[in-house]
Amino acid sequence: MSDEARVLAQLDRGFDTYLEDVLAAIRRPSVSLTGEGLEVMAAWLVRYLTDLGAQARLVPGTVAPIVEGELHSAAPSARELLLYELYDTQPAPPAGWLVPPFEPAVIDEGDGPRIVGRGAFNSKGPLMAFLTVLRAFHEAGVALPVGLRFLIEGEEEIGSPSLEPYVRAKRQRLARCDAAFLPYPSTNVRGETVLRLGFKGLVLLELEVVGGAWGGPARFDVHAMHTAWLANPTWELIRALASLEGDDGRLAIDGLRECAWEPSEDDRRLLREAAATLDTGSWLEELGAERFRVEDPEALFTRFSFEPTLNVDALDAGRVGEGETSATLMPRRAAAHLDLRLVPGLDVASSLSLLRAHLERRGFAHVGLRVKNAYPSAKTAASEPVIQSLLAACRAHAERVAAIPLHAGAAPMYLFTDVLGLPFAFGGVGHGGRSHAPNEYLTLAGLRALQRSITSFLFAFGRQGTSA
Amino acid sequence: MSDEARVLAQLDRGFDTYLEDVLAAIRRPSVSLTGEGLEVMAAWLVRYLTDLGAQARLVPGTVAPIVEGELHSAAPSARELLLYELYDTQPAPPAGWLVPPFEPAVIDEGDGPRIVGRGAFNSKGPLMAFLTVLRAFHEAGVALPVGLRFLIEGEEEIGSPSLEPYVRAKRQRLARCDAAFLPYPSTNVRGETVLRLGFKGLVLLELEVVGGAWGGPARFDVHAMHTAWLANPTWELIRALASLEGDDGRLAIDGLRECAWEPSEDDRRLLREAAATLDTGSWLEELGAERFRVEDPEALFTRFSFEPTLNVDALDAGRVGEGETSATLMPRRAAAHLDLRLVPGLDVASSLSLLRAHLERRGFAHVGLRVKNAYPSAKTAASEPVIQSLLAACRAHAERVAAIPLHAGAAPMYLFTDVLGLPFAFGGVGHGGRSHAPNEYLTLAGLRALQRSITSFLFAFGRQGTSA
Repeated sequence: MSDEARVLAQLDRGFDTYLEDVLAAIRRPSVSLTGEGLEVMAAWLVRYLTDLGAQARLVPGTVAPIVEGELHSAAPSARELLLYELYDTQPAPPAGWLVPPFEPAVIDEGDGPRIVGRGAFNSKGPLMAFLTVLRAFHEAGVALPVGLRFLIEGEEEIGSPSLEPYVRAKRQRLARCDAAFLPYPSTNVRGETVLRLGFKGLVLLELEVVGGAWGGPARFDVHAMHTAWLANPTWELIRALASLEGDDGRLAIDGLRECAWEPSEDDRRLLREAAATLDTGSWLEELGAERFRVEDPEALFTRFSFEPTLNVDALDAGRVGEGETSATLMPRRAAAHLDLRLVPGLDVASSLSLLRAHLERRGFAHVGLRVKNAYPSAKTAASEPVIQSLLAACRAHAERVAAIPLHAGAAPMYLFTDVLGLPFAFGGVGHGGRSHAPNEYLTLAGLRALQRSITSFLFAFGRQGTSA
Repeated sequence: MSDEARVLAQLDRGFDTYLEDVLAAIRRPSVSLTGEGLEVMAAWLVRYLTDLGAQARLVPGTVAPIVEGELHSAAPSARELLLYELYDTQPAPPAGWLVPPFEPAVIDEGDGPRIVGRGAFNSKGPLMAFLTVLRAFHEAGVALPVGLRFLIEGEEEIGSPSLEPYVRAKRQRLARCDAAFLPYPSTNVRGETVLRLGFKGLVLLELEVVGGAWGGPARFDVHAMHTAWLANPTWELIRALASLEGDDGRLAIDGLRECAWEPSEDDRRLLREAAATLDTGSWLEELGAERFRVEDPEALFTRFSFEPTLNVDALDAGRVGEGETSATLMPRRAAAHLDLRLVPGLDVASSLSLLRAHLERRGFAHVGLRVKNAYPSAKTAASEPVIQSLLAACRAHAERVAAIPLHAGAAPMYLFTDVLGLPFAFGGVGHGGRSHAPNEYLTLAGLRALQRSITSFLFAFGRQGTSA
């Protein structure tokens, strides 16, 4: 029996205990938005890691400590993997839940048993899936095939304010790791396991027009009739916005799309495979939509991965009353909350300066621009050993596995790929859902599959290390 | 002593009593939005009119009765004037008031005594100014120089739902009047008395884009990232809106501005006189603005009167959170609440069909259009006897008097000008302000001036009748 088979067998044998560990983590509320329970949860994790033989300690953060630590491998030439995870969750107002959100239960809603509770999917379930795999190694007496370094933050749901300072402060040590890994149940409701090899970058910004020296009402909203002779901030905003998006529904900021890198040959191959593997029709259904912008699946995944986009999260001008009547006023201030997603080739500073230049060129110097949050995209090449290991591990435990080069969802993974220079792997087999929503869940089958794919991944990455 | 001088003298003598009548009307809350006190106020008015020797009665309305009546003139050939007024007010939450809003008081805030209370300016003050003038005629024993017909509604602040049915039902009788009159304290804070000979029309409408068969999220808001491959209702709305307004800040609905009538020679003369009489700089200051769209005063008043405009009263897409962060979502629905102001030459039906054709021509057939309220502009020629009479009366009691052909504010005066075919006069000398706001007021000097200018107007219009 191989070491890998022994750990997989132990995962089966000990499943009830490991499930109890997952439930125990969910039972400890740790809500970064309110501060509730963060210290307690962090201390619990340190104890959990210590019980596995790891070194573990707390590093103070802005609102929650970071749990850091290490667990060495007995193999002298073993690679070292940086485990990145989070222990905080979104708040959970109890309305709409089948169980109290912090009193998780295993429930069958009709398609098999699932763990229901806040954090089951995002991300205490995956975190504990990883840690219970380590417990299974420990209990099976199997040596770890890779060394581990832990970076478990408690501020992810509030934008990770302490992560960048931590990573920059510990850069030299962290950069010695061979790769970073974030376990994630990547199997959708149709059984497709989709790995994402990167994330788009994000610039959350606000465009704002306020009456002033340039024109418009400068002190208060005025009656709607005055748009006849006073410049109108809302129309200025609308015209400025309209200039940013073409009739073809693509970003029209002068020079921006030209900076985006073309997909590599590897990327194109992944996109072709994804188009062949994944059922875009059911993706559409899941989005509650009747048609995509384009029909060809490969073109579709290419847009999803490589198209820089600008979403209007909210428009803010005037007030809409209860009965859908609004005051006949010309608002003094109009604003748009925008979500600009960056792809490789677009860095934050030059994207913003292209945007400013675009607006000024069109006479919108009076349109204010406020950046609320910004970070670039991050991407790991498909050829990296850590990606190959994760793909192989997923294929060992799931039928339909595809990888897309870049997820349109944004995450600050550039801290790992660019600041630390580490390849970053994200994913695993297993299904969960309703992130941030009531009745968030991870299926029991999903927990098992995630544990198994993590186990195979650790062995596969360990082998890459010894064969190097 | 002329009849006119005798009435003016009686107005002085009886001023304290007449002021008490104004306060008594304000003391009776009559709020059409809530229904409070409407019947009581209407009955009080019927009694007031009856005490003056008028016939008066109530006609049921949607939420408030209409007070109708007549008061004949002794002169056999006298003209008949249709007095249009309102007895309802906006609600008055007490916050910010110097006095309880329905317990009016005479207060000096620093520039002379003023009546402060809900309705002091809009419109119980002007209504009672008119009725106390009739009381002064009565008490001075002077015969009315014109016959009067009363149409006093109690639903103006909720959009006059009963006015049009009433006017259409009584059309034959009402159309026999010689003119309609709405007294209004038209003197601004700088002592300029500005008569408006007409009003723009109004189309309150909502443009709405909802995901559906054409594309976009059709069932719920989706994550912002999906704008990469799903059409975006908010962008469709923004592009549709942007097509409606030119870079020059003027309406760009295909063919619309071309339908607007050119100002007549009389109109041009009034605009020139207004530009010479009125201090546009202080108007700007009052609007809390630093510059108008154009500098030349005549061009400015021309735009104010004759430019069709489209104001965005409110934009409604996404949600803006407390701390100005918004969810990174693509809203399924985006809407704009618009205020289209019509000038002579633009009727409601053809303006709306031009708008629909404009949108369809540009591929915005999926942009929904909902009309919430609509009526055309209304305008009376400066040469009409009733206008000449009001201008002469105002000039008799004020220094700087100007008339602008059309007010950019909208009012459904087409019921009088177009449905009944009556010239419509609106105005008077006197200053008040803070309509719909806390500490709404009419100055005591303004009440006197309004009474005096109404008196002179009645005599002037009566003379026009006998000389005809």
